[in-house]
Amino acid sequence: MPRTLIKDLNTKVGEAAKIQGWVSVRRDQGKMVFFDFRDRSGSVQAVVLPSEALAIAVAKEIRGEYVVSASGLINKRPEKNINPNVLNGDIEMQVQTLEILAAAEPLPFDMSLDGYNLDLPTELDHRALTLRHPKVQAIFKVQATIIDSFREFMKSQDFFEFQAPSIVPATAEGGAEVFKIDYFDKKAYLSQSPQLYKQIVMTAFERVFSVNKIFRAEPSMTTRHLTEVVSLDAEIAFIESWTDVRDMSEACVRFILMAVAANCAAELALLKAELPTMIEKTPTLSLAEALAKLDAPADKDLNPEQERRLCEMIKEETGSDFVYVYGYPTRQKPFYVYPSKENPEVNEGMDLLCRGVEWLSGGRRINDYAQLMEHVQKWEMDPKKIEMFLEAFRYGAPPEGGFAFGAERMTMQILGLKNIREATMFPRDMNRIDQPLSEQGE
Amino acid sequence: MPRTLIKDLNTKVGEAAKIQGWVSVRRDQGKMVFFDFRDRSGSVQAVVLPSEALAIAVAKEIRGEYVVSASGLINKRPEKNINPNVLNGDIEMQVQTLEILAAAEPLPFDMSLDGYNLDLPTELDHRALTLRHPKVQAIFKVQATIIDSFREFMKSQDFFEFQAPSIVPATAEGGAEVFKIDYFDKKAYLSQSPQLYKQIVMTAFERVFSVNKIFRAEPSMTTRHLTEVVSLDAEIAFIESWTDVRDMSEACVRFILMAVAANCAAELALLKAELPTMIEKTPTLSLAEALAKLDAPADKDLNPEQERRLCEMIKEETGSDFVYVYGYPTRQKPFYVYPSKENPEVNEGMDLLCRGVEWLSGGRRINDYAQLMEHVQKWEMDPKKIEMFLEAFRYGAPPEGGFAFGAERMTMQILGLKNIREATMFPRDMNRIDQPLSEQGE
Repeated sequence: MPRTLIKDLNTKVGEAAKIQGWVSVRRDQGKMVFFDFRDRSGSVQAVVLPSEALAIAVAKEIRGEYVVSASGLINKRPEKNINPNVLNGDIEMQVQTLEILAAAEPLPFDMSLDGYNLDLPTELDHRALTLRHPKVQAIFKVQATIIDSFREFMKSQDFFEFQAPSIVPATAEGGAEVFKIDYFDKKAYLSQSPQLYKQIVMTAFERVFSVNKIFRAEPSMTTRHLTEVVSLDAEIAFIESWTDVRDMSEACVRFILMAVAANCAAELALLKAELPTMIEKTPTLSLAEALAKLDAPADKDLNPEQERRLCEMIKEETGSDFVYVYGYPTRQKPFYVYPSKENPEVNEGMDLLCRGVEWLSGGRRINDYAQLMEHVQKWEMDPKKIEMFLEAFRYGAPPEGGFAFGAERMTMQILGLKNIREATMFPRDMNRIDQPLSEQGE
Repeated sequence: MPRTLIKDLNTKVGEAAKIQGWVSVRRDQGKMVFFDFRDRSGSVQAVVLPSEALAIAVAKEIRGEYVVSASGLINKRPEKNINPNVLNGDIEMQVQTLEILAAAEPLPFDMSLDGYNLDLPTELDHRALTLRHPKVQAIFKVQATIIDSFREFMKSQDFFEFQAPSIVPATAEGGAEVFKIDYFDKKAYLSQSPQLYKQIVMTAFERVFSVNKIFRAEPSMTTRHLTEVVSLDAEIAFIESWTDVRDMSEACVRFILMAVAANCAAELALLKAELPTMIEKTPTLSLAEALAKLDAPADKDLNPEQERRLCEMIKEETGSDFVYVYGYPTRQKPFYVYPSKENPEVNEGMDLLCRGVEWLSGGRRINDYAQLMEHVQKWEMDPKKIEMFLEAFRYGAPPEGGFAFGAERMTMQILGLKNIREATMFPRDMNRIDQPLSEQGE
């Protein structure tokens, strides 16, 4: 008999079917044994009756997480046992043959839907097992939807996907937070951002995006930073103004939120997550306007408390969970950010804040080669170290800008998770690569 | 006037239009100046007539790769000047206003469609510029199609995409070809393969795939190896046999070839590339059968010359450019490969060869925990170093297998390129990261 996916069993009522999957729950009631079986498509209840002597014998052996192949009749449940709120809540499998495909050792903790309750270190120490729990799976289904819908949106806008490199030469901007690799007898580093590469590729393909790993040697254990994350990056040629970048990024985030709403309703419900509200036109303030609104001194960046308050004020005034802030002090940002023509002391960089924290950054970049070289000097950079980047601009680069955000951080913030490690399948930080580093051999 | 993409100019015949793009060609004929303008969508011929005094003045200033905004009339060409074989071969823009958006220095070499002819080191030294050439762009459009269609196929088969990590702990299998990272005061490495992670995630999601970087510290300068490449990986639970893996991989490669044929006809023509032939059922030989066919000794793996000859023989006999070879000596392959039940000395691993070289590898894996632990011991591995992997199998893992191939290698082989560096936007090897390492600062 061919395998039927569990989600399709409702098409087999009154017939025999074979399923293959894991044992989520086993309840031994002496003469009968009840199961919840699970495969990638869903769960179903099953019963082995005393009359099925061979199946009962196998059922007595089985524990949670055994992998089985089960065949039997798909029956309607009696009216009083129907649960209309879950998949297959109206049917039950009456098992006739039961085969063990793989055994499982006794579980180290409660893996049941409601009994699962681990502290984060334990959840991560046992990632190979906790990845099977529906609530953990829901997080990564939402994350896959975020990444997929980013890609879908960018392609719908005629952007070309390229593969940004991970190994990079000596960085021109320096910085202590870069990982060094033993690269034969030379020096190499792990990329902190595809920024310069996406600008290079933009000068050839106009509209480009990438989904790639970035690395940061952050020697701290915050709830928001990891050493390896997925960066979603886009760069756009032939803009008229930084507001074109804002508009594209807004449309992108809106598309992602709609895709998550459409494809992950069950996951959002399971995780009790509520999507943020994006109104028709997201409020946009200059940094100066934002600081004035907060009665704060005019010459500083927003601190985290101010970001929270600003978001609250905007939410109250407009209903929007989102707010763009643009126009940061030029000298405090990277050399490639475009200084405003009206006031070169501030630039045309921008951040998108939501619910008190930054979701996305971007802005217009310098495209004029002479201006870029001026900044390279002012920022005291070695032009030899970014020769490939500079070449792209030496030979004609259009007015341009772009934006970027982290897949894990957006997952965390959409779902209201407390720690970015929950939103990362295999989180890496200064103390952990799979297992805590102190516990590893070598 | 809003911008019109160059590919859409044929809808504007008899009207005015504005385009934005780069100057591919400029021919100064004294009183008139002719241009080929290029944007992401295509090219068009343009002429500036002597009557347009302002535009002529600007046109005289312009060189190749200048970025411009040009407005003017879109005219039908006289019958004798029509070229039906190229985009916009029947129209010409009569420029009325011409604006320079960005200047370009004089080009260091001929960038014209037919005049472009660089040795590979020069092409790579100037990647920021050579990426603009249509033949180079064609390579990366084909590569993007390969990666996109891999993803599309896997999703159509209900596979879940996950993000495999790049930073990994001490590898259990060891090996000199792994890059070491300074990871705070600890040791970490760059991943050579997502193999163990995709097997872990398979035990939770059943059908999984990933598109991710892998790294190899290969201290050699062959035409087929780089230190960083894109690996396309898939893993499938609940298989009956290794032939299920073969069939899935065959359907995947077939889908990719069809997608390249459908979406990249112009690119294939430009690169004079011919897709390989995949017949309805790709021939499959055991290694023993292949060696017998080649009149070779029975106890060795195929060498490169034998791979070439085998492919030639199969092509002649069946018309297929592809052939699967399975059943390799168990002890010469990794610990997780499934030994044949009939003869445990050979395993159920497989390779897909095409036109004399390997395109893809895969096979069935061991899913039984006891058997896996037996192999861990026989292969003299430290189980502590793969604890997370072993945990996945300790708690119930279904019969499974998977496959993997490299995006750059497949691009190279589909297009008949001589060196994998041509199929890599930013190739890394022991002597190059963007620029030759010997020439970099620091």
